[in-house]
Amino acid sequence: MSNQSQIPVVVNGAMGRMGCEIVKAIAAADDMKLVGAIDRKPEAVGQDIGEIAGCGPLEVPVTMDLEATLVMAQSEGNAVMVDVTHPAKIYEQVRAAIAYGVRPVVGTTGLTPEQIIQLAEFAEKASVGCLIIPNFAIGVILMQQAALKAAEYFDHVEIIELHHNRKADAPSGTAVKTAQMLQEVKPSFNPPQVKETETLPGARGGTTPEGINIHSVRLPGLVAHQEIMFGAPGQVYTLRHDAMDRVCFMPGVLLCVRKILPLKSLLYGLDKLL
Amino acid sequence: MSNQSQIPVVVNGAMGRMGCEIVKAIAAADDMKLVGAIDRKPEAVGQDIGEIAGCGPLEVPVTMDLEATLVMAQSEGNAVMVDVTHPAKIYEQVRAAIAYGVRPVVGTTGLTPEQIIQLAEFAEKASVGCLIIPNFAIGVILMQQAALKAAEYFDHVEIIELHHNRKADAPSGTAVKTAQMLQEVKPSFNPPQVKETETLPGARGGTTPEGINIHSVRLPGLVAHQEIMFGAPGQVYTLRHDAMDRVCFMPGVLLCVRKILPLKSLLYGLDKLL
Amino acid sequence: MSNQSQIPVVVNGAMGRMGCEIVKAIAAADDMKLVGAIDRKPEAVGQDIGEIAGCGPLEVPVTMDLEATLVMAQSEGNAVMVDVTHPAKIYEQVRAAIAYGVRPVVGTTGLTPEQIIQLAEFAEKASVGCLIIPNFAIGVILMQQAALKAAEYFDHVEIIELHHNRKADAPSGTAVKTAQMLQEVKPSFNPPQVKETETLPGARGGTTPEGINIHSVRLPGLVAHQEIMFGAPGQVYTLRHDAMDRVCFMPGVLLCVRKILPLKSLLYGLDKLL
Amino acid sequence: MSNQSQIPVVVNGAMGRMGCEIVKAIAAADDMKLVGAIDRKPEAVGQDIGEIAGCGPLEVPVTMDLEATLVMAQSEGNAVMVDVTHPAKIYEQVRAAIAYGVRPVVGTTGLTPEQIIQLAEFAEKASVGCLIIPNFAIGVILMQQAALKAAEYFDHVEIIELHHNRKADAPSGTAVKTAQMLQEVKPSFNPPQVKETETLPGARGGTTPEGINIHSVRLPGLVAHQEIMFGAPGQVYTLRHDAMDRVCFMPGVLLCVRKILPLKSLLYGLDKLL
Repeated sequence: MSNQSQIPVVVNGAMGRMGCEIVKAIAAADDMKLVGAIDRKPEAVGQDIGEIAGCGPLEVPVTMDLEATLVMAQSEGNAVMVDVTHPAKIYEQVRAAIAYGVRPVVGTTGLTPEQIIQLAEFAEKASVGCLIIPNFAIGVILMQQAALKAAEYFDHVEIIELHHNRKADAPSGTAVKTAQMLQEVKPSFNPPQVKETETLPGARGGTTPEGINIHSVRLPGLVAHQEIMFGAPGQVYTLRHDAMDRVCFMPGVLLCVRKILPLKSLLYGLDKLL
Repeated sequence: MSNQSQIPVVVNGAMGRMGCEIVKAIAAADDMKLVGAIDRKPEAVGQDIGEIAGCGPLEVPVTMDLEATLVMAQSEGNAVMVDVTHPAKIYEQVRAAIAYGVRPVVGTTGLTPEQIIQLAEFAEKASVGCLIIPNFAIGVILMQQAALKAAEYFDHVEIIELHHNRKADAPSGTAVKTAQMLQEVKPSFNPPQVKETETLPGARGGTTPEGINIHSVRLPGLVAHQEIMFGAPGQVYTLRHDAMDRVCFMPGVLLCVRKILPLKSLLYGLDKLL
Repeated sequence: MSNQSQIPVVVNGAMGRMGCEIVKAIAAADDMKLVGAIDRKPEAVGQDIGEIAGCGPLEVPVTMDLEATLVMAQSEGNAVMVDVTHPAKIYEQVRAAIAYGVRPVVGTTGLTPEQIIQLAEFAEKASVGCLIIPNFAIGVILMQQAALKAAEYFDHVEIIELHHNRKADAPSGTAVKTAQMLQEVKPSFNPPQVKETETLPGARGGTTPEGINIHSVRLPGLVAHQEIMFGAPGQVYTLRHDAMDRVCFMPGVLLCVRKILPLKSLLYGLDKLL
Repeated sequence: MSNQSQIPVVVNGAMGRMGCEIVKAIAAADDMKLVGAIDRKPEAVGQDIGEIAGCGPLEVPVTMDLEATLVMAQSEGNAVMVDVTHPAKIYEQVRAAIAYGVRPVVGTTGLTPEQIIQLAEFAEKASVGCLIIPNFAIGVILMQQAALKAAEYFDHVEIIELHHNRKADAPSGTAVKTAQMLQEVKPSFNPPQVKETETLPGARGGTTPEGINIHSVRLPGLVAHQEIMFGAPGQVYTLRHDAMDRVCFMPGVLLCVRKILPLKSLLYGLDKLL
């Protein structure tokens, strides 16, 4: 039974790397209590998720049974489910959580626009808060919001994102998303001062429809970094975020668990909560 | 006679480095017209300020007569005076401008709090807009605003400011001001994780009353740079501004000239206009 | 029995974090074979060090018996001992290794100058190579060597080192060492251009006897970083090293194991091998 | 007549921006004396080059007569000509200087390999020192030399060069040259860890034949900057040069004037003198 003032939380996908980190973060938060840990590994069923995550026993056994866990969580009152499973199953799981009145905090970029609209309608009808969060890193969201403000005053901007060399795709989703967000402020950036020529194709980076150049650096030793550089005559204004470890997502996850309680509908993106 | 749609502007201190830059910026702005250039150099009286500033003839002769210039400017309607003279004379000059209905845009950090209060009362009574702008660099103000937002979510922050080695004082006024602003968000920063010891006194920088460490780097080759670094487990969020040339202040000056027109009272700081 | 072309290696302190990393690096190196794993944990004796380090079974059991391991290693011919134990015991252990003809590669800053001189004499007499390596990070040594070269042409330099906020001492040993090295090139740096004043004590950092300012930044999210900035009129030349993980020391460890074989005496510092 | 211990120097192209900077640097150097200033502007002939360059009168009138100036300089003994004119005329001028025994220091990238070979033969035969210096920035050369050393130990490297947006070509000559130099150390860099895909063409930059990715950033506010990033597991080593003003080339120019005296043949590149 949870302490009156603690938010009961279920983690779906609890045995993944992100799931384990979330289990530890919730265990360390005074105002939350882990009440369920779901994962699809039959061999782990019944084991203490705290032991698996490496934070000592939490008396919460791993289970594969989503529905039973939701029923139990609901009975605790004001429960939240943090879902960090694979996109394929998320839509159904989130519907189930809403149906049981357990508020879903979903960390995924894998839902289609149609699915998001349907979930929004479903959450609205049920008056249950629901958060779809493509990126839990508060620092990244702050950087994007600061960039939106800067774009009102600067006409020139380029993005440099730097990742380890096991990342196969370029540019990063965050860099593309950042460029798209800037378009809300101005339809296009980087009006040319001279006719540019590339003697080495690609040197000037990839250019988005907004005219923003994105440069993707890949090196071992790097983790996940992004720089947004704004330029004007005589000055450069640079925003940079360095993510060294997935523990950096935890303040965003905890913020979502706290802020979802009074919500009665779906919100998309951590920026809505900052 | 100025074009109907152009704002008539007087520059006080027009022959200084900053004044010349402003003369050029106004000459290049379609929606403004330079109508007066005041400076206290008897030998320059009568010379074309455009020639002196290096942007070609503007048919505006340098004068030492503030009052006559204000009278003339007022007759043009909706006039603005940009004042970049030394602090000692500014208070009287700004009062004079307000008295003549010419809106003052003042770039100085040299007014006392009492003087600012008196000017605010005087502007209010006269229903004339007045702007006191300690820093015209839009990029610096954006950086400070972004830092204020970040301080809501980060408990740890240090400031590194880097300047040429002819700068005698440390830390820079902007760094100190930034630290003071952050105190509005939280009373203190950087709760210690361990007991720190300095084997070389000063290594950890200067510590403000808010507990923010400021580090001042001085090297030839540097111009004027500031970094604000926020840290949390697994992530670092950095804001940086590089000012290479005083031309970087011009967008801020022009913004002030445009935004002062509808004002009826005194505002302090460029942040009020962003 | 080791492959003819493989260097037999003993790791002393194999169960520590650094030791485990070294065990994995040696297991992954085609030209080396782990033949011994020493640690002072009775409960671990007999367990496979490969399982403990997390790289799968290596058929090398943990032992507490240094001498027996040295005898066995010696019998393999051309053996090397990597010692990453605590400084208190290192002197005796290194003497023992030299006595048995097993070449020691020692990662420590904890030996006194007298101890180093004695070990050098002992190694010389025995004609056995010995490496005392205060820092295995090749990148840091390259940075210091590049700084030595730059110091011939630049008179102004400051050092910024940035670490996580669990580091208690400031400045870092590497920063102090770097400043000392630069003194070999010039007796003093940073001739003043103006009379400096600190309105916030410590803002200009700690100043070494060479006149080099060192700034120590401490924030959660940082790992271990150092910047050396050289300035001259119109230019800045910056060297930076970012260490994100102790795996960065492994190329230096492996280099030492390979380069120690032909040596007949003691060398101090990785720079002697680059 | 020059002081016995001063090197007599002629500047060819003295009225250009670079030429004026060199005139000022020579005037400020105790061990040099400006004895000639050549430029092809008839209207300036006879004017004092010191007045034109902005360092006060030097009693050296501008002339268009190269030969007469070389004859005069030769008579001073041990004379040097710094040539910063356009590439089209340089070959002939350098031959003339060598013929008159005036040592040429030539700042150009515009000579063909054949021209350089011919000048080398001519200088050799005449036993007159000659320096062809594509880049006078000592900091850039130091960065390239440090990169050559680092390339021995790192297999992964990318180059980011950042310039003002009036620069039309990308990548910069210095970035391309740097990549070519690294090939001397290793035939190829950046062995792939994964199969990379670009969802935005060019995001991964331009790739040189050596497999080095070059990224060219163009923004107003930037001047001329280059970063060379080396990566390995757990670490990143970065070399960066920021050139803010052409005054940064002067130490390299003065170094050449001093070091050319004992030379008896042609050398290419400032790196030969460091």
